[in-house]
Amino acid sequence: MRSVPELTTNAVGRRVPTEVNGVPRRPYGGVGAPEPEGTRHGPPIRSCADYPRDGDKRVGSLEEALSRCELRDGMVLSTHHHLRNGDRVAVPALETLARLGVRDAMWFPSASFPCHAPVVDLMESGAVHHIEGSLNGPLGDYCSEGRMRGSGVLRSHGGRFRAIQDGDVEIDVAVIAAPTADPFGNCDGSHGPSACGSLGFALADSMYARRVIAVTDRVVPFPCVPWQIQGNHVDFVVEVDSIGDPAQIVSGTTRLTRSPERLLIAEQVARFIHDAGILRDGFSFQAGAGGIALAFVEFLARRMREAGVRARFVRGGSTRVLVDMLREGLVDYVLDGQTFDLDAVRSIAEDPRHVATTPFTSYNWHGKGNFASLIDVVVLGATEVDVQFRANVVTHSDGRLLHGIGGWQNCLAAGCTILAVPSFRDRIPVIVDEVTTVTGPGERIDVVATERGIAVNPRRRDLLEALRGSDLPLRSIEDIRDEVEALCGGKPEPPCVTDEPVAVVEWVDGTLLDTVWRLAPR
Amino acid sequence: MRSVPELTTNAVGRRVPTEVNGVPRRPYGGVGAPEPEGTRHGPPIRSCADYPRDGDKRVGSLEEALSRCELRDGMVLSTHHHLRNGDRVAVPALETLARLGVRDAMWFPSASFPCHAPVVDLMESGAVHHIEGSLNGPLGDYCSEGRMRGSGVLRSHGGRFRAIQDGDVEIDVAVIAAPTADPFGNCDGSHGPSACGSLGFALADSMYARRVIAVTDRVVPFPCVPWQIQGNHVDFVVEVDSIGDPAQIVSGTTRLTRSPERLLIAEQVARFIHDAGILRDGFSFQAGAGGIALAFVEFLARRMREAGVRARFVRGGSTRVLVDMLREGLVDYVLDGQTFDLDAVRSIAEDPRHVATTPFTSYNWHGKGNFASLIDVVVLGATEVDVQFRANVVTHSDGRLLHGIGGWQNCLAAGCTILAVPSFRDRIPVIVDEVTTVTGPGERIDVVATERGIAVNPRRRDLLEALRGSDLPLRSIEDIRDEVEALCGGKPEPPCVTDEPVAVVEWVDGTLLDTVWRLAPR
Repeated sequence: MRSVPELTTNAVGRRVPTEVNGVPRRPYGGVGAPEPEGTRHGPPIRSCADYPRDGDKRVGSLEEALSRCELRDGMVLSTHHHLRNGDRVAVPALETLARLGVRDAMWFPSASFPCHAPVVDLMESGAVHHIEGSLNGPLGDYCSEGRMRGSGVLRSHGGRFRAIQDGDVEIDVAVIAAPTADPFGNCDGSHGPSACGSLGFALADSMYARRVIAVTDRVVPFPCVPWQIQGNHVDFVVEVDSIGDPAQIVSGTTRLTRSPERLLIAEQVARFIHDAGILRDGFSFQAGAGGIALAFVEFLARRMREAGVRARFVRGGSTRVLVDMLREGLVDYVLDGQTFDLDAVRSIAEDPRHVATTPFTSYNWHGKGNFASLIDVVVLGATEVDVQFRANVVTHSDGRLLHGIGGWQNCLAAGCTILAVPSFRDRIPVIVDEVTTVTGPGERIDVVATERGIAVNPRRRDLLEALRGSDLPLRSIEDIRDEVEALCGGKPEPPCVTDEPVAVVEWVDGTLLDTVWRLAPR
Repeated sequence: MRSVPELTTNAVGRRVPTEVNGVPRRPYGGVGAPEPEGTRHGPPIRSCADYPRDGDKRVGSLEEALSRCELRDGMVLSTHHHLRNGDRVAVPALETLARLGVRDAMWFPSASFPCHAPVVDLMESGAVHHIEGSLNGPLGDYCSEGRMRGSGVLRSHGGRFRAIQDGDVEIDVAVIAAPTADPFGNCDGSHGPSACGSLGFALADSMYARRVIAVTDRVVPFPCVPWQIQGNHVDFVVEVDSIGDPAQIVSGTTRLTRSPERLLIAEQVARFIHDAGILRDGFSFQAGAGGIALAFVEFLARRMREAGVRARFVRGGSTRVLVDMLREGLVDYVLDGQTFDLDAVRSIAEDPRHVATTPFTSYNWHGKGNFASLIDVVVLGATEVDVQFRANVVTHSDGRLLHGIGGWQNCLAAGCTILAVPSFRDRIPVIVDEVTTVTGPGERIDVVATERGIAVNPRRRDLLEALRGSDLPLRSIEDIRDEVEALCGGKPEPPCVTDEPVAVVEWVDGTLLDTVWRLAPR
């Protein structure tokens, strides 16, 4: 059993632990605070004398590769999630570690998926101590129910890069699933039977881990070009029959929403961007791969054609919708962190204007700037938004851990952040008094667009000014909340949780923004 | 005046200082020794809060940029040499530093050229204390004559990367001359009026320096693609009228040798590679941009066509000759560290098979392997080779510092290293008893090819075995030396030097391979 840690109250009024998994932690102190100290993490210096002179780092199996690393109880093993729910590498790696006798490992994925449910068994057996990373489905339940021995730590993609770069998390072994690799360890995600597009989420792991194992089902002769992951960071290369199920790695095609309410939201967001004066030549935007976001991009493209406007760049998660805009010449570049469908995978493999990016370029708060803040407008989702414009993307209103943060927090740095959300789901209000878990502070969320109207954060007087004369249904967020409460028969039930923390939500700078509490026994 | 330091004798029998510029140093202990210790250098952690949210890092002048860095006496300022003798950035940067009152700076270029002669004045005035980097022309003379206050430190391109990565040299400010950049600091060398091709020699500087200034004469809107240098490493961007003289940055066209002796050497080296069985499908090679090397590549291409053989990759220094092979389909990839002529610049800008590499990928000895050792055969030059197969590339036989090491030492890791040299120059023997300055140990040099015959290092029995039956003029190196001495009227004059070290030659691992001594007064 975890001991109940000391709690403190942070700058958004949430109680957060002062220590997590044995490490002292700082509460969130506001956007941009505190100033970082110290130096970037330096992994051990290696020597070419210890690597094969002919560059062939292949070993016979994942077990052989792992057994040649410095294994120890309590070690940290990291994986990336570009293979999504088709991943066949992370679980075998953890199972092999268990077979080799390691106990109490920390699994440090860039995200987890339902296919990773077997890690529950490894936690039950003691091989894995806890997970720091997104916790969805069965893993989210396991954590929410207080069964995980350590605390979950939810980090954004950029926060994860930062944590590795700053040395908050020292990775012992990084296992990188590579759709194509050469014997030297150069890895490419955009070609091969298991192609997933970019491999950026594994970048920090490759740069900073003590040992790096590339696992691939397609070996090409050196050089593997492009080398999204550099072989100069890789210790061992393992060839396996299959790293994943292609059908689960990328979707074959992009689905657009048909819901009239969601199409309305999407259309109004596009109109908002036009009316607010953001839609101008050379502008930039980012949209997720959810239904509203994809529909929004189509509406936006229509407005761009009408206005004769060309975007300088768009940020993916990329899909056919963005690829079509690139081909049509509506945008100059797609800067792509994740590749969601087959059209996007083909595009990133072939089109030099479709450029792979990484959490380092795009999201790292402890860098000399990042791409996220250069974007004029970003359209995101949320599970809840409150009247202080704070939003939640990680828990359900009942308190249960559901989702990882992904790049969501990092994207809030954009010039204009729009949350495009239905005002309620399953008769539970989305617009609420207080979000269950603060994942984004209100000062970083500018607009909440629902099918019942659009609320602009009062902090953004400039936007309100720009929108004078627009016939968009602008309303206060309290108005929308009131209407939704009336519709849904009142406020949502408060979450039924204990006062025992089971996970924490980091802000992009590593401070603690909120706590996920253990669910009360039913 | 420097105090005369304590000396020790290293594994190749050369006397080297135990301390250089106040830092204790280890003598060379043999190839692959010693094992490295410690961790890679970690530069200070930065925060996006301290950089413009819109990503525009432009400031009005180089002076403004420098004055916003943490300036101090004795600081280290680094530059790269991709603009070669056309560089108009390094000297202004150092002069600005002097104007801002900095004294005793160390200049840390990746190489120097005759255009950098004004640095002599800065050393005379006390603004610059000494230079660690290649010292040619007037700078070489200044050092050789004992006028530089600190010791020269000659590092290979890979050794320089290693020294920065390992923290041997901590760069305070890196100034990166960029033929194209965006306001965020992403830099590209392959486009723009001052295009130089790749920018790899500035990579370590960008990653590890405390402050990084990009200086460009062509600003494009974000994103500058490709971003050979990542804006996420850059603090300030300065736009100037011109970063260099295009005519001196790359040569308009590649000159091939017409000397019959050199053509003979080139032809025989190509034949050697064929007869030794190295010329086979999927092989790889590297050749410099000197006259013999370029002619060799043409002879090799002819043999490849005849044999129906295709190379998997070649390493540049790239020129039209390599580009033509790529276009013809004789090679799959050009992996390119430097781009020497206009055809090569155009190719690296346009052809995805012409890939920019860096000293990290190719040359860093303290990495998990590097590309240099994957190459089947490399053809290099030298100023002297001795009968122990040790070679010199940095000094003239009179002891005067003439050249930097470049990638030469790093290339010695190839499967077969061939030095293609005339047996004498200006009636001074090139094949000698003892090289003036050991720049490469004999165990890493396999073949010496001269117009008077080819000597194979007796350590390479495998090569001698493979060449049985070849009608190549194989001879012992002593035979060649004897013949050359007879022709030239005896052994070369011994260098006329004092016992005062003025510079040291590092091996790829940071140990000291040899010493350059102060010239005796004439």
